[in-house]
Amino acid sequence: MNDMRPLILLSNDDGVQAKGLNELIDMLSPLGDILVMAPDSARSGSACAITSHDPLRYRVVAVRPGIKVCACSGTPVDCVKLALEMETGRKPDVVVSGINHGDNSSVNVHYSGTMGVVLEGCMKGIPSIGFSLCDFDADADFSPTVPYVRGIVERVLKTGLPAGVCLNVNFPRPSGQGYRGTKICRMARGMWSNELYAADHPRGGKYFWLTGEYTNKEPECTDTDAWALAHGYVAVTPVTVDVTAYQAMDGLKDLEVL
Amino acid sequence: MNDMRPLILLSNDDGVQAKGLNELIDMLSPLGDILVMAPDSARSGSACAITSHDPLRYRVVAVRPGIKVCACSGTPVDCVKLALEMETGRKPDVVVSGINHGDNSSVNVHYSGTMGVVLEGCMKGIPSIGFSLCDFDADADFSPTVPYVRGIVERVLKTGLPAGVCLNVNFPRPSGQGYRGTKICRMARGMWSNELYAADHPRGGKYFWLTGEYTNKEPECTDTDAWALAHGYVAVTPVTVDVTAYQAMDGLKDLEVL
Repeated sequence: MNDMRPLILLSNDDGVQAKGLNELIDMLSPLGDILVMAPDSARSGSACAITSHDPLRYRVVAVRPGIKVCACSGTPVDCVKLALEMETGRKPDVVVSGINHGDNSSVNVHYSGTMGVVLEGCMKGIPSIGFSLCDFDADADFSPTVPYVRGIVERVLKTGLPAGVCLNVNFPRPSGQGYRGTKICRMARGMWSNELYAADHPRGGKYFWLTGEYTNKEPECTDTDAWALAHGYVAVTPVTVDVTAYQAMDGLKDLEVL
Repeated sequence: MNDMRPLILLSNDDGVQAKGLNELIDMLSPLGDILVMAPDSARSGSACAITSHDPLRYRVVAVRPGIKVCACSGTPVDCVKLALEMETGRKPDVVVSGINHGDNSSVNVHYSGTMGVVLEGCMKGIPSIGFSLCDFDADADFSPTVPYVRGIVERVLKTGLPAGVCLNVNFPRPSGQGYRGTKICRMARGMWSNELYAADHPRGGKYFWLTGEYTNKEPECTDTDAWALAHGYVAVTPVTVDVTAYQAMDGLKDLEVL
């Protein structure tokens, strides 16, 4: 590692073996030294979960010039905490997460381990960016994302991000025609429904798989991430660590008489 | 279950056996019918995690007049999804989570499975409230919380909450003198540090436990949940499902030229 180059901390929730993470290493290694601390297998849907009842372990799985790759037994957020305290002699210049195999726009941000990494980096005062591609295929084509990923990371390395604000970047599934550009978006109001698939166990009783259908509740609004993705744009949604619903505070003042 | 009474869906992240949940059942059963769907053991730090790679199961563990208690193999958010699709013929009138054994104020909201329940309820369009007591003791004294829990749930049953807004209610550790009242707060800016405790495994290598110290980054501000708790008030923080950092959008417009 070279102290004169930026230090880029990478993680994800699909696991250290995922194509999206390994493509991200290749995209970003020209920009700085790379430290990867990623889960040792898939942790989809981990959100900001932390491991409180079990011990954590990690191991170095690859070292190349300017690149060190570690695999961790914990969640995506655990990975960031471990990397920052155990593997970096200095604060990373940026935390980058992904590229996720699957959509993390709209309310999916709340379930996303990819965005867990990003929120954790942001809470530690490091500019942090999550990248997700709307394609669950393990062999998804990430090539159209390259100029956007590099451009966004370069910009953030140069000018930073406001304190307490991180980025949720989602790419449409490649259509073969490239993307129409980048849009700064708000997250769409949406809802998941029909989320349980019930099956009969051969020895009796039912078990359930999480599944479901997502509905954009405001498809006519052109300023949302869901709209941008549906229309071929790269959706960049700034996300806040401070989740206070400020606009609701006055209307709750009657609770203070309790 | 009686359709004329409100239906109250309860869950938590400490597990179905936790004292905080069982006290909550007792506090709220005078207000309506109670359906509990809670994890079958502790799931602290689950955030909004969902179970994507394993099947889910649940079983009914207790039935009393107006009260049904189920234990689920999944995360707190899984519990809400299962309850809403499999156990309620009608939409619950309110989702209540807790009472958590431990503080979920400030940035802890992001890691909290208690608040995962609440965000999930809110995303499903149901008024949702999380209660947490700043005392990790398994036998913590919840009695000072009773009038506040009942008062807040009654108020929310009566007048609802704004769409996309839920409540994060934190109680100071009981001092023996009761609470000074309720304060509507914003979440404090704070940070965890020194989060890893390293130990040597007897057969070689290191393992790590998550731990840490929380620092309030704005102790002088009197409008935060951390301040309220430190000064003997019940802290009520409205939390938004829409985590867009609206104030940062204009400053990112240069990314649209990519």
